[in-house]
Amino acid sequence: MKWYEEIKNTDGQGVVVSSRVRLARNLARYNFPSHCSEGDARGVIQEIAKVVEESQDLTGKLLRMEEVRQLDKVVMMEKHLISPLFINSHLPGALYVTEDEDLSIMVNEEDHLRIQSMMAGDHLQKALEKADALDSILEEHLMYAFNSQLGYLTSCPTNVGTGMRASYMVHVPALESTGQFQYILEAIGKFGLTVRGIYGESSDALGSMFQISNQVTLGISEQEILDNLSAVTRQIVKQELVVREQLLKEKYSELEDAVFRSYGLMRYARVLTAKEAMTLLSDLKLGIELGVLKTKQAMTMNIYTLMMSIQPASLQKMESRSMSVQERDMARAEYIRKNLPEIIGG
Amino acid sequence: MKWYEEIKNTDGQGVVVSSRVRLARNLARYNFPSHCSEGDARGVIQEIAKVVEESQDLTGKLLRMEEVRQLDKVVMMEKHLISPLFINSHLPGALYVTEDEDLSIMVNEEDHLRIQSMMAGDHLQKALEKADALDSILEEHLMYAFNSQLGYLTSCPTNVGTGMRASYMVHVPALESTGQFQYILEAIGKFGLTVRGIYGESSDALGSMFQISNQVTLGISEQEILDNLSAVTRQIVKQELVVREQLLKEKYSELEDAVFRSYGLMRYARVLTAKEAMTLLSDLKLGIELGVLKTKQAMTMNIYTLMMSIQPASLQKMESRSMSVQERDMARAEYIRKNLPEIIGG
Repeated sequence: MKWYEEIKNTDGQGVVVSSRVRLARNLARYNFPSHCSEGDARGVIQEIAKVVEESQDLTGKLLRMEEVRQLDKVVMMEKHLISPLFINSHLPGALYVTEDEDLSIMVNEEDHLRIQSMMAGDHLQKALEKADALDSILEEHLMYAFNSQLGYLTSCPTNVGTGMRASYMVHVPALESTGQFQYILEAIGKFGLTVRGIYGESSDALGSMFQISNQVTLGISEQEILDNLSAVTRQIVKQELVVREQLLKEKYSELEDAVFRSYGLMRYARVLTAKEAMTLLSDLKLGIELGVLKTKQAMTMNIYTLMMSIQPASLQKMESRSMSVQERDMARAEYIRKNLPEIIGG
Repeated sequence: MKWYEEIKNTDGQGVVVSSRVRLARNLARYNFPSHCSEGDARGVIQEIAKVVEESQDLTGKLLRMEEVRQLDKVVMMEKHLISPLFINSHLPGALYVTEDEDLSIMVNEEDHLRIQSMMAGDHLQKALEKADALDSILEEHLMYAFNSQLGYLTSCPTNVGTGMRASYMVHVPALESTGQFQYILEAIGKFGLTVRGIYGESSDALGSMFQISNQVTLGISEQEILDNLSAVTRQIVKQELVVREQLLKEKYSELEDAVFRSYGLMRYARVLTAKEAMTLLSDLKLGIELGVLKTKQAMTMNIYTLMMSIQPASLQKMESRSMSVQERDMARAEYIRKNLPEIIGG
């Protein structure tokens, strides 16, 4: 089972969707990717391939990105397995990935290695443990670029130290719709944290989904980073739940109307852009979690998985054909319709 | 069966919803309503009451407006039986109305008598015949204010002559959505015709429903008025059908999406204003008529009847209680949901 298939729509009221830990590592023997030759890059891949081959503990497979079709690369990006930067890299790259897609390593992205661990729900500690375990296996075979004073050395100075970035994906429709998330966005920098949309730095806040992650990696331990991120996120979750309660108590009629309308549009629309679909699915998630929408049967997949499935590349991959924007919007509407649970009160 | 229950959603592709003829008459022995005393007004009612009582041909009933509750008056207005002016009149008034509501007489509105004949679909000629028949019966018993040169005398000079106003209610969503109805509105005055919304002179164009009627009543025969109105309306109908064909051929995907979305909103919204509901019902009417929406069963009532039923007073009458605006919007959403046919492709 893929890690994201384990996401529950009601997990901790569904606010914390997933936890992710990423470790940046570089091999001491090679120039860092921003300055390395193609030969260096191939050397790095070769080293990783050897470890993957030799180690009993590494059960995933190593994909050479040169052999991966462009569409499949974008699908990987839509699943948060790889970054946009990685797709467009001029260097040869590779991706180590487990069957569950919960553990992965981008080879030759901004750093030689980007170890990533993802888990459904609020399990950052566990995600870190899994990333650390993978890191330890690699370290047995590889010589990392490490400085006893600075810690792990990375291409970008902001990653030096632990080389760790930890993040939560949170779903905060109540805070967003009432405009309160704006204040959180403005304040969060003070805690050494940063907020981005579901698809990276510059992306819009699609479906009220946000990634909250640490900015600082230097002079602070991995555990401190996690504790800080968890504490702040816990506050955000608390606020989201307070506002949800307020909506239920004070604006029930509007809330009910809004989530039912969104459901109705998904049930009947014939054309849906990814952006609109994300908003509607966000409303569905909120409605189900608050008990305003009562489903008649279990969903074919959780809403987060559905959100990823309707992204442009994933949709084309599923349909096994290249589609125009208009064709995608129609296929998306149909796909959502098919995977929408029936609800009581139609 | 009420006359409007006979409206078919597909009648002549549903563009001409109904036909109406109204005759303005005054009794020679009394001052006209704008200048008459309460005693005069009661005298007029008395005369009509006597005719209704004595004539075998008049099977309807005569309601004294003083005895009609305010809510019921507004319901009558929403059904186009009486005018807003009539509700707010300071004079004692009465309403003669048949069981089917197809023939009626407002007593002491702007004129002593406003005879009205309404029919489903494009049947102006028949509506005129029925109004004329009623008029003839009345004329046997009453002395009308009539001038051999001018014709029937009326309170407002624009009604002098035949005293007739004929009108069609048309549903032109395609012309309206493409902005082409605006040109028709501007040109129609040249033909001595005028266009109003479904609820009178100042009302917005709700649900793409418009009344097209003659402005001129003097120096032209009843038949000429009808022929002129019919000819122009036939042109409008033709244009509407041309644009519908264009939408089907050239913008099928957008059209399909739009009508399905409107259906989805009606199926699931919990709060609906009258204005929004009219727009959604208009889309439903268009969708069914074009075969884009395929219903699984016959509708409980035609869409025009549904449009009248969800007006504020009619809704409260049906629920037998006075409701706040918010309560009405919720009751309206529920009522539409209950009366919405199931469609194929949910």
